[in-house]
Amino acid sequence: VELNDLGEFGFLRRVREWIPDAPLDDDAAVLLPSPGASLVATTDILVEGLHFRTDWSSAADIGYKAAAVNISDLAAMGARPRWLLVALGVPASTEIAFLEELYAGLGESGIQIVGGDTVASDRLELAVTALGELDGPPLTRAGARPGDVLAVTGPLGRAAAGVNLLLGPRYDGIRPEDVMSCLDAHRRPQARVIEGAALRRAGAHAALDVSDGLASDVRRMCESSGVGADIDVVPVADDARRVADARGWDAQRLALAGGEDYELLVAIPGGFECPVALIEIGRIVDGGLSLRGEPMPEGGWEHFRVGSGK
Amino acid sequence: VELNDLGEFGFLRRVREWIPDAPLDDDAAVLLPSPGASLVATTDILVEGLHFRTDWSSAADIGYKAAAVNISDLAAMGARPRWLLVALGVPASTEIAFLEELYAGLGESGIQIVGGDTVASDRLELAVTALGELDGPPLTRAGARPGDVLAVTGPLGRAAAGVNLLLGPRYDGIRPEDVMSCLDAHRRPQARVIEGAALRRAGAHAALDVSDGLASDVRRMCESSGVGADIDVVPVADDARRVADARGWDAQRLALAGGEDYELLVAIPGGFECPVALIEIGRIVDGGLSLRGEPMPEGGWEHFRVGSGK
Repeated sequence: VELNDLGEFGFLRRVREWIPDAPLDDDAAVLLPSPGASLVATTDILVEGLHFRTDWSSAADIGYKAAAVNISDLAAMGARPRWLLVALGVPASTEIAFLEELYAGLGESGIQIVGGDTVASDRLELAVTALGELDGPPLTRAGARPGDVLAVTGPLGRAAAGVNLLLGPRYDGIRPEDVMSCLDAHRRPQARVIEGAALRRAGAHAALDVSDGLASDVRRMCESSGVGADIDVVPVADDARRVADARGWDAQRLALAGGEDYELLVAIPGGFECPVALIEIGRIVDGGLSLRGEPMPEGGWEHFRVGSGK
Repeated sequence: VELNDLGEFGFLRRVREWIPDAPLDDDAAVLLPSPGASLVATTDILVEGLHFRTDWSSAADIGYKAAAVNISDLAAMGARPRWLLVALGVPASTEIAFLEELYAGLGESGIQIVGGDTVASDRLELAVTALGELDGPPLTRAGARPGDVLAVTGPLGRAAAGVNLLLGPRYDGIRPEDVMSCLDAHRRPQARVIEGAALRRAGAHAALDVSDGLASDVRRMCESSGVGADIDVVPVADDARRVADARGWDAQRLALAGGEDYELLVAIPGGFECPVALIEIGRIVDGGLSLRGEPMPEGGWEHFRVGSGK
């Protein structure tokens, strides 16, 4: 059965079967905020061909990731994710079974889907809005101060290694489990919700999620905070490094410019009692950005400039 | 200057100049809900070629309408609009001046833009999420009861007449002011925010905004409420009727199947003290849908079936 056969209202009836708790009957959802909490809102679009490919990821993977990248933005502020709205652009010839799987993937995020919209489109597109809550001030990217330690919640480069493997699928001399973990990192990123909340409560100065590559994201934190940074360590994941070595890629570049790791980059003050495992990568300074004493190379993942890093 | 020349971060810097109050620096916005209010959330996508054409509407019109159709969903529930998030898909060759005008149009809605995302796209697309607040229970489409009077907040058919004029632009024998008001109804719909809030407070039983044509939207209210309706009057706007007569179109069909009027359809109980001007069109009954005693013709505007009504 194709979407085309059901029409818009027939499709909406199906969506209500897939998401039985969703108040999708009215055009707007009524939500009950927690007393005293502030609301945190973020939106991200994922587009077929740019952010995902249907020959690389299953429908469930695509739905899961669309939720995860938005939840990651909430996590970086230390917020509790609560609700999702899903605006879907979808080719009329799409199989309904594919869309059911997509919604199942969205639901795997554990966050309640409370609304949405669907339009016909040439390619699959998901514009997801995530709403979360926060008791107390948010963790932002603007609070880093000279003297802070810079750290990440996990090693980087797996998702970029996964994308590069998918672009040129040769696996000779690479352990299958390394292939799988890198592909999985691209398809199923983990939003660091618990880590973000714990870092905020513990008094971290600044955080953001590493979505565009470490080099870009350190630069963004520094620009927002009006500071510089010296990076000593580029923490490449072991499996990503082994894949890079087998394929002759620059492993450090995967971490610096690859993007889509969704670990949190965090600036913490001296004497910080760390509530979660962190990998120290450098420190915040007055002045510019440097990588082991050299100026930081440019190059993250900017969406309008093809080939600028990825 | 094209978007391409600026890159993503350069573009985001421009957006911050256009919307100086927007907390767009972090990936998520922190919002302060009113104590005790419930939150109302809705999302709608507008797509070039399907919902608007850049040769029919200015960039400001497109931005304005993308905000208005979402605000209209809040208005139908009687909610106060508060915040917008704007996810934008945009061709890399788009002139920055066009995007500045688009944001100016979004801003004309009077609602604060608090976040967004931008990706490269073949065509212009706006996925807007509107957040509002509500003190007390929402007005929904599910509360209509047999015996209620059905009414609309204004006459219908102007926007559909405008679209039909744009499809075949011949204006002989039509008053220029009728052309302008119909084109304007398509380009610049008015969300009935004050009316929705007043109707909710006064105890209206059900409401929704007439976005898909009166026939479809009465059907949706009736299905949600588990009732039927007899329509006696199809309130066609005078200017839309004159345009239809001059061009040989069925004026009633513009109102029944045309869509995009964004007036509120409301079901009110007997003895209701009406806080705003309403046009009575019929009543809620047990049983099916009828138009002057005949079964209601099918045909609204379903997005996946081309030519089903529009």
